Amino acid sequence: MFEIAELGHTVSKTDYNAQVPELRTQLLTVQQQLKSGDFPVIILISGVDGGGKGDVINLLNEWMDPRYIRTFAFSTPSDEEKERPKFWRFWRTLPPKGLIGINVGSWYSDPLSQRVYGVINDSELQIQLMQIRQLEQLLIDDGALIIKCWLHLKKDEQKKRLKALEKEPENSWQVTERDKKHLKMYDEFLMVAERVLTDTSTGDAPWLIVDGSDIRYSSLTVGRHIFNRIQKQIAKRAVEKMAKTVLEPSHHLPVMQQNVLDSLDLSLNLDKKIYTQELAFYQGKLNKLARLAYEQKRSTILVFEGWDAAGKGGAIRRLTHAVDARAYQVIPIAAPTDEEKQHHYLWRFWRHIPRAGFLTIYDRSWYGRVLVERVEGFATEQEWQRSYSEIVNFEEALTVHGILVLKFWLHIDKDEQLKRFKEREQIPYKQYKITEEDYRNREKWDDYQLAVNEMVTRTSTQNSPWILVEANDKKYARIKILKLFCEKLELALAV
Amino acid sequence: MFEIAELGHTVSKTDYNAQVPELRTQLLTVQQQLKSGDFPVIILISGVDGGGKGDVINLLNEWMDPRYIRTFAFSTPSDEEKERPKFWRFWRTLPPKGLIGINVGSWYSDPLSQRVYGVINDSELQIQLMQIRQLEQLLIDDGALIIKCWLHLKKDEQKKRLKALEKEPENSWQVTERDKKHLKMYDEFLMVAERVLTDTSTGDAPWLIVDGSDIRYSSLTVGRHIFNRIQKQIAKRAVEKMAKTVLEPSHHLPVMQQNVLDSLDLSLNLDKKIYTQELAFYQGKLNKLARLAYEQKRSTILVFEGWDAAGKGGAIRRLTHAVDARAYQVIPIAAPTDEEKQHHYLWRFWRHIPRAGFLTIYDRSWYGRVLVERVEGFATEQEWQRSYSEIVNFEEALTVHGILVLKFWLHIDKDEQLKRFKEREQIPYKQYKITEEDYRNREKWDDYQLAVNEMVTRTSTQNSPWILVEANDKKYARIKILKLFCEKLELALAV
Repeated sequence: MFEIAELGHTVSKTDYNAQVPELRTQLLTVQQQLKSGDFPVIILISGVDGGGKGDVINLLNEWMDPRYIRTFAFSTPSDEEKERPKFWRFWRTLPPKGLIGINVGSWYSDPLSQRVYGVINDSELQIQLMQIRQLEQLLIDDGALIIKCWLHLKKDEQKKRLKALEKEPENSWQVTERDKKHLKMYDEFLMVAERVLTDTSTGDAPWLIVDGSDIRYSSLTVGRHIFNRIQKQIAKRAVEKMAKTVLEPSHHLPVMQQNVLDSLDLSLNLDKKIYTQELAFYQGKLNKLARLAYEQKRSTILVFEGWDAAGKGGAIRRLTHAVDARAYQVIPIAAPTDEEKQHHYLWRFWRHIPRAGFLTIYDRSWYGRVLVERVEGFATEQEWQRSYSEIVNFEEALTVHGILVLKFWLHIDKDEQLKRFKEREQIPYKQYKITEEDYRNREKWDDYQLAVNEMVTRTSTQNSPWILVEANDKKYARIKILKLFCEKLELALAV
Repeated sequence: MFEIAELGHTVSKTDYNAQVPELRTQLLTVQQQLKSGDFPVIILISGVDGGGKGDVINLLNEWMDPRYIRTFAFSTPSDEEKERPKFWRFWRTLPPKGLIGINVGSWYSDPLSQRVYGVINDSELQIQLMQIRQLEQLLIDDGALIIKCWLHLKKDEQKKRLKALEKEPENSWQVTERDKKHLKMYDEFLMVAERVLTDTSTGDAPWLIVDGSDIRYSSLTVGRHIFNRIQKQIAKRAVEKMAKTVLEPSHHLPVMQQNVLDSLDLSLNLDKKIYTQELAFYQGKLNKLARLAYEQKRSTILVFEGWDAAGKGGAIRRLTHAVDARAYQVIPIAAPTDEEKQHHYLWRFWRHIPRAGFLTIYDRSWYGRVLVERVEGFATEQEWQRSYSEIVNFEEALTVHGILVLKFWLHIDKDEQLKRFKEREQIPYKQYKITEEDYRNREKWDDYQLAVNEMVTRTSTQNSPWILVEANDKKYARIKILKLFCEKLELALAV
């Protein structure tokens, strides 16, 4: 597949100088249009060593308005990064809508070099490539434009290039021992690269393979490709937006599913005295376990979802009470911020993934996508339908990394909710907690119930199960949560 | 994820009888609309043993017009099927546009049971699931609607069901030793099933998990789900069609790629005497190798593409001349038949995949998608862009199955083509070969050249490489092809 990129393309200086001004104008024009657009552009520049990645990136930054470009070079991950799932460092640097992000070295670098060095075998490589396709698909589904360029060099060309660099005193630092080692492994490297490129060249995110032997040729080619892709994406988004407004929700036959929530016994309760004893007991236990988790560097993520006034806040406080304040973080999820809105909906949750040994509690979470956003119509049906598998993949990335993930749904019935609303209205310091919106949500109880049922069915997995909590009695609910958390943590820590 | 399906849903006989007529009417209505529609419906019915798959399917056939339904039960593959890549048997039974295909047991059965029985490990399962997702995506991209239903039973429910069946003399045959064995492995089976369902529940093809404990409930639920999905798909296709007509091709900056074809030395030729000698030599050699391949049950697929009048036919004849006529098939590819048009474009090529030990020669091929269909605008840009990876995956399925795949591009220059056109017009028995269309194609030489370049770059892989043949001299071309085929076959047979 590298045949064409080995033909030795060149562009003369005169031609180059004649062509650059037009290309620059065009790139600046689409960049301008992009700023008011509703999608990010992610450019990946990969290729063989000495293929001129750095030169091309510098030229791109020179040609375009650098204020709206973010360039990131990924090499060895930092400590911070190592303690999180592998894609975390790419999520944190994703460009927001309207901007261009250029990545040198990307999610492709690790699988590629790991396979070349024999750290992983063919099927492990295939699985990693599948994860990459899932990541790219998720971004593309959200509107992102992904442009992937591979700068190629023939073997002898690479040798020549590295030799030349080494001779110039001001450039010799660019040639590392690793480069020289790579040169020796050129053939193996290329075989793996072919596998990687064919497996990840999709209709929406194809690889452009560029002859890297002449920087004038390669930079012009990459620049034009970027212009073409952005321009096409702007047109595509416009049509999609139009199609979306036309797509009427169709008439639906109700599918009679029994309700998993109805099967819960809401009369379950705890006597005050027993509650006080058990609270003390499990808080003490959790305290020890949390310290152990910190020592063992095992992270935990807890998700709390439930009806308004189901007692999420109270349950969370009983739990954090037992943990050192430096070791946990509670992330209350409300409407996304302006900045968060410029990203994929999972981005704001990736931000808060804990470092090794820490506990993060999400008070409401990414499940908003299939609950409030679904019921209120903030997400289209296609969007929330798609998100079940996106969420499962996301949580799998967490559990595979060794993070304990537990999800609690706090269930109360409609009468109990009304009672609590009324109580809150009577207590001055609780009045702020109850608004008109709470009553409006209450009217959509049945829609929410349907959404909760589907959520539980589609996202409860062995490794990150939903735990349904009978919460009409707050005491019972709090102890059940504490107790289950202790049990699961104990298991995870192999105490 | 099976919680809700274990709640024991039931529908009373009275309710059932009241609800069936309406559902039937609705199903028949969408079926009618579907007939004039432009997409096939693929329904997969899977689930635990005893979950009532057979009953549900019988009811679906009863409720709908069975003339437009094809039901297939897949169990152990036949000899015919075993000799082809694993998805071959599913391709051959895919429903055409406008029809409904119901599959009991499907591409999910093998991975599921192989994992339960420990024949494959977790990563092998993951890879198989990825291939399934690719298959489903390819069909969905082509407009197909895939509806996946999983009929679930609790463990003790399954036991009861199998016991009950066994007691009735007329039904006891349904309970096999395999079923009883499965019952023992219920927990393991369910754990794998969960993995399979979560990994393959995508936005476009989600799994519906249905409580199978009451046939009235499960059949009504499946029936309604099918109605909803078909109805929604009809609406979606209408909008997509509209969007397609609006999407204008955008202005493109030419990407200056040098031409891989220009690098070929078209002056290469063979002296007639040497040609005659070598022809005899390689035909003799091929004859022996082909017989050996037949014995070793190694299949070969050869693809011939090239300019009009490049000499594909002549080269193929020199090759088949050396092989027993019972062992090969030449498939000339012209415009698709009416029946073929009702399927995915790859369907007509899957049909002709050879049995073990046979040779199939495609005179033009699936590459028409990225050549004539691209240049003439028969396929949209999205369609042909997507097809590069579809084709790579398709060929990988062939090579993984052990089939030798070789692709020849026969290259001549524009002058040589004109010369040959003129010659053909002079020779009475060759006149039929030359039409107005050939001259029209000739005018699009540059567009085709661009398409050929991109095709070679995107689809030449280690396991199924493109072989570029300098064909201005027919003799040279024929010998190069024969020689290369012999070499590759020798290598594959490890002679």
